[in-house]
Amino acid sequence: MMRVGIVGVSGYSGLTAFELLLNHPQVRVTYATSRNSQGPLAEIWPRLKGRTNLICEKFKLDKALKLGDLFFLSLPHGASMGIVPKLLKARKRVIDLSADYRLKNALDYKKWYDLKHTDAGHLSQAVYGLPELYRSDIKKANLVANPGCYSTAAILALAPLCATHTDTISSIIIDAKSGVSGAGRKLADQLMFCEVHENFKAYKVLNHQHTPEINLYLSKLARGKINVIFVPHLLPVNRGIWETIYVRFKNRIQEKMIFNLYQKFYKTEPFIRLVPLGSQPQLRDVVGTNYCDIGFVVGERENILVISCVIDNLMKGAAGQAVQNMNIMGGFTETQGLL
Amino acid sequence: MMRVGIVGVSGYSGLTAFELLLNHPQVRVTYATSRNSQGPLAEIWPRLKGRTNLICEKFKLDKALKLGDLFFLSLPHGASMGIVPKLLKARKRVIDLSADYRLKNALDYKKWYDLKHTDAGHLSQAVYGLPELYRSDIKKANLVANPGCYSTAAILALAPLCATHTDTISSIIIDAKSGVSGAGRKLADQLMFCEVHENFKAYKVLNHQHTPEINLYLSKLARGKINVIFVPHLLPVNRGIWETIYVRFKNRIQEKMIFNLYQKFYKTEPFIRLVPLGSQPQLRDVVGTNYCDIGFVVGERENILVISCVIDNLMKGAAGQAVQNMNIMGGFTETQGLL
Amino acid sequence: MMRVGIVGVSGYSGLTAFELLLNHPQVRVTYATSRNSQGPLAEIWPRLKGRTNLICEKFKLDKALKLGDLFFLSLPHGASMGIVPKLLKARKRVIDLSADYRLKNALDYKKWYDLKHTDAGHLSQAVYGLPELYRSDIKKANLVANPGCYSTAAILALAPLCATHTDTISSIIIDAKSGVSGAGRKLADQLMFCEVHENFKAYKVLNHQHTPEINLYLSKLARGKINVIFVPHLLPVNRGIWETIYVRFKNRIQEKMIFNLYQKFYKTEPFIRLVPLGSQPQLRDVVGTNYCDIGFVVGERENILVISCVIDNLMKGAAGQAVQNMNIMGGFTETQGLL
Amino acid sequence: MMRVGIVGVSGYSGLTAFELLLNHPQVRVTYATSRNSQGPLAEIWPRLKGRTNLICEKFKLDKALKLGDLFFLSLPHGASMGIVPKLLKARKRVIDLSADYRLKNALDYKKWYDLKHTDAGHLSQAVYGLPELYRSDIKKANLVANPGCYSTAAILALAPLCATHTDTISSIIIDAKSGVSGAGRKLADQLMFCEVHENFKAYKVLNHQHTPEINLYLSKLARGKINVIFVPHLLPVNRGIWETIYVRFKNRIQEKMIFNLYQKFYKTEPFIRLVPLGSQPQLRDVVGTNYCDIGFVVGERENILVISCVIDNLMKGAAGQAVQNMNIMGGFTETQGLL
Repeated sequence: MMRVGIVGVSGYSGLTAFELLLNHPQVRVTYATSRNSQGPLAEIWPRLKGRTNLICEKFKLDKALKLGDLFFLSLPHGASMGIVPKLLKARKRVIDLSADYRLKNALDYKKWYDLKHTDAGHLSQAVYGLPELYRSDIKKANLVANPGCYSTAAILALAPLCATHTDTISSIIIDAKSGVSGAGRKLADQLMFCEVHENFKAYKVLNHQHTPEINLYLSKLARGKINVIFVPHLLPVNRGIWETIYVRFKNRIQEKMIFNLYQKFYKTEPFIRLVPLGSQPQLRDVVGTNYCDIGFVVGERENILVISCVIDNLMKGAAGQAVQNMNIMGGFTETQGLL
Repeated sequence: MMRVGIVGVSGYSGLTAFELLLNHPQVRVTYATSRNSQGPLAEIWPRLKGRTNLICEKFKLDKALKLGDLFFLSLPHGASMGIVPKLLKARKRVIDLSADYRLKNALDYKKWYDLKHTDAGHLSQAVYGLPELYRSDIKKANLVANPGCYSTAAILALAPLCATHTDTISSIIIDAKSGVSGAGRKLADQLMFCEVHENFKAYKVLNHQHTPEINLYLSKLARGKINVIFVPHLLPVNRGIWETIYVRFKNRIQEKMIFNLYQKFYKTEPFIRLVPLGSQPQLRDVVGTNYCDIGFVVGERENILVISCVIDNLMKGAAGQAVQNMNIMGGFTETQGLL
Repeated sequence: MMRVGIVGVSGYSGLTAFELLLNHPQVRVTYATSRNSQGPLAEIWPRLKGRTNLICEKFKLDKALKLGDLFFLSLPHGASMGIVPKLLKARKRVIDLSADYRLKNALDYKKWYDLKHTDAGHLSQAVYGLPELYRSDIKKANLVANPGCYSTAAILALAPLCATHTDTISSIIIDAKSGVSGAGRKLADQLMFCEVHENFKAYKVLNHQHTPEINLYLSKLARGKINVIFVPHLLPVNRGIWETIYVRFKNRIQEKMIFNLYQKFYKTEPFIRLVPLGSQPQLRDVVGTNYCDIGFVVGERENILVISCVIDNLMKGAAGQAVQNMNIMGGFTETQGLL
Repeated sequence: MMRVGIVGVSGYSGLTAFELLLNHPQVRVTYATSRNSQGPLAEIWPRLKGRTNLICEKFKLDKALKLGDLFFLSLPHGASMGIVPKLLKARKRVIDLSADYRLKNALDYKKWYDLKHTDAGHLSQAVYGLPELYRSDIKKANLVANPGCYSTAAILALAPLCATHTDTISSIIIDAKSGVSGAGRKLADQLMFCEVHENFKAYKVLNHQHTPEINLYLSKLARGKINVIFVPHLLPVNRGIWETIYVRFKNRIQEKMIFNLYQKFYKTEPFIRLVPLGSQPQLRDVVGTNYCDIGFVVGERENILVISCVIDNLMKGAAGQAVQNMNIMGGFTETQGLL
């Protein structure tokens, strides 16, 4: 039985991770913490009443080290890097759901998150927790940087192309739409019900912090520079990310060829589903699941491919993917607790 | 041309009042203030761009006195009573949208709003701004206490009965549901999108501050003590109040008789609409309007009357009613700017 | 391994039952039918892609008898009674999610559902599938009438009182609010997005078909006539039922006494959770779960008890409860597949 | 006083037009028709109770000709072309809100709407009702083809560029999102509340019937072939269209230069508002108004311009624009009834 600690259980990702692990036969959550809320977890999240007696505490290193083997850090950006080195030093394994270890360059981190990185030494050691690309590295990793929600959808939607067709792609535009839980559980004027409901808007246009993450991992795949145009929008739903991705090619393409390429690339992946040609995915088919659904339409005259990619931002975009990573790290069945 | 000042224009009621007055041919908003946001009103509310050049300022008494004849105070409870005496002293007319002058007893105010009333002297002078009951008093009033949103719906739904059938009523239960804008524009955990959307809950059960207001004015009508059971709920919509009211009678009643009673009582009222027997009102028929729609079903066997009453909480429940009061005070057509 | 057939898998309850059973270790869905949609289930419900290869067919009795041991009938009212006698005759066990076997009197059925009952002979044999009241009967039953969604919440909220305090209750009013999936998956003007979103309304006021069901089973408990006032409303959410229940007493009551009564009554129940005094349940704490959360506020002066009761209409209100019943019938752990 | 007939008043556009005209001092709606609903308009739309006594009838040509001077045809595609020739023959003026007269080529109409055009003779005479481009033609027109909702936003967002910078534009992608009322008031599985709420999806990808309309009028402006990539999505809100438009340039561009170009182009337009550089428009700022708000972000390194354009699909995208056209045709102040 693996003993798991969840650091930051009072946020939406922390709660989702906790609920997933409640039903996981091979792990037990033995430690849960929050900076803002302490006490019985079932009082912090009444949803959990009758399902757990765990007490949520303030994070204390010694207690963490004593109680846990592997830790989920479900913290705001900047908070993880204060804890990670200590956990690693004590030979604990860590899945960090924040952005702290996703980028590989401390200067990029500083530029996009406006914070000096205080643990740059571990950046190179962190494995990017996207199982479809880095499964074997994740297996051995002590530190997994769980991908951003937008990044997960974007990279999964583009990986097969970038790995094989870089030369013929002339541009990539990602028009992304996210449910509100993607912003985390925090007080903010623009996240109030009356500001979001019956409303819609773009934000951080061409300036979102997931852009360098997407570019970094797609470029690795492409063995060359990929530079996407990325525009996120706030969707008036609780959960789910939809990305409409426009890939312009230099030459002619065909739907069937694209579909086959993806089918082959993701052949053995348990959480990638390709939507049949002629139809489209939809948010609700993935909400509450760890699936990533992908659909294609080709405009033959314009050499354009329109990819629709959907995930649940709290599942495949955060906690679900973290559990998938944990399963790989622990040598469990990869879908355990996720189907 | 009456010159109107709106004190607290950065809230939802303040904005709604401003938009209504923009189209009112007999008044001009000459002064608008906010504690938190200053600058061009069209920047604070981009919705107003191209429609006004007014600059929103911090409230200054001398400027207010110079620029306005009548003032809308669209402030949180407790803030109005600091300003009202000064405006009245300068012989200005005031419509207070807060709760500060609705109750007639400073102790009740203290009990329900947990604030000492600092201007109790004006409580008796304030006229309750429900035109359907107090039109002639409003006409002459210098200080109008604009009713609470829940109270407006409750009192309008029950006034004809309380004025005529007190002796035969054995109990009144009000199950009220309000859209989120009823809570005002403020940061609060429980008003975040993810906490309200796809959710529903009761709050302040048997303990809401509009209860004494409803009881006070119904008791006046009844010339006896009315004591309602009042339970409010938060509805995942932006605007609108629905109240389901259960009136238990000591004797037999009939739908047609009730309908006729209301029809007669509200015969000349421009904003009260009775829904035909056999059908029900709905929120969206009144949203964006100053109407109050009322429907009836009688359970003959149980001597029970179920009244459905709907208003837009920002219109008949706040700013619309304030404009209606202003029209009466100013001697304008009562529906001016509201149809 | 119990072999389960789901008749009517293209509706929301049928889908929910299917998803629950996918994760149930002791049963396998071997047969699934729909009148309107045939073909791979994963095409009818893309959400199921990658999780099942089952083909959805038109119902054929002989095939059903060959493939299934126990059947979920997730059909519109009136359709079950054509199938049930044939399944029972072949010694199959049936959980009927429709209303066909809930009432015990064919005339009542005719009155409330406007249909002649064609299998009245089995009415007395059907066990009402509310485990908290009829667990031992369900265990042995061949035909379980799964309760209505509104009825489930109402009866669970009132059972402890009706079983013990009938003499002192003077009236019961149920103000119920349901998410839209409660109406089933059907085309109807009043269920279109634009007719429901940002709207709210009552329907079938004092005239809803769950009223006699609630009265029947509460009266049994009370060993006397219980007659509730029931008013349902349509809530702009997908899932969830909230009932605010007003119980008027003839004598004084106290919150603590009520709480203790319920605590004792539901002591060993796995799916009933009492909300601590001083707080309220909320829809989202039960959505996606089989829990029923109940909260209490007492108005001591008015001898009134306000009960708040919430369930997920597709779970404890339909498919979840059906699975709970199946677990009891099959001798499985009662919470299997439901936690 | 101009006498206006609204043909198709039971749809959302028809209702919106009617409500706008109720407050218009220079016109009177004298005739209103519907194929499906006849009787007092205030019964068909309870929202209108107390505001009109008009009776809605089935369309009869002779009565129409007797009662109206100008007609709004708010009909499904294919229905207008049966009526228009008769109205024009009788020298009535017509604003057609359907798609029947927007395209100029009967074959294109056949291709995109799958209907043979039965009044191709009037196609060339119809003036495209986008005041910002065709004001002087509209003034004299007898037949105005009111633009599609998506087309209005797209063309307004791109007109200044297409009129001046065609040579340097290398591609245009329009990622459009529409509220549900854009689909009209019709029964359809995919428009049911439970299918739309908490959901999101693309539809008619690269295949929407507004694409040729957008291309036609942009190409006219550009005096050359414009071919946009157009992908619409269904947004879970009642009203509003948001389009994110990606314009790729061959050369360097600057935000300030773009902003100035638009400012000059739309200098005197009463309903076009440019959002200050550095901020974004939002749906709710235009909902309920006839405004079109436009914002810009430039990616200098990628030579890309991201335009955000929002309108209310029922106002500037349908009925509001129709009233604007009527004002121009009637020689009224263009903003009359719209501010």
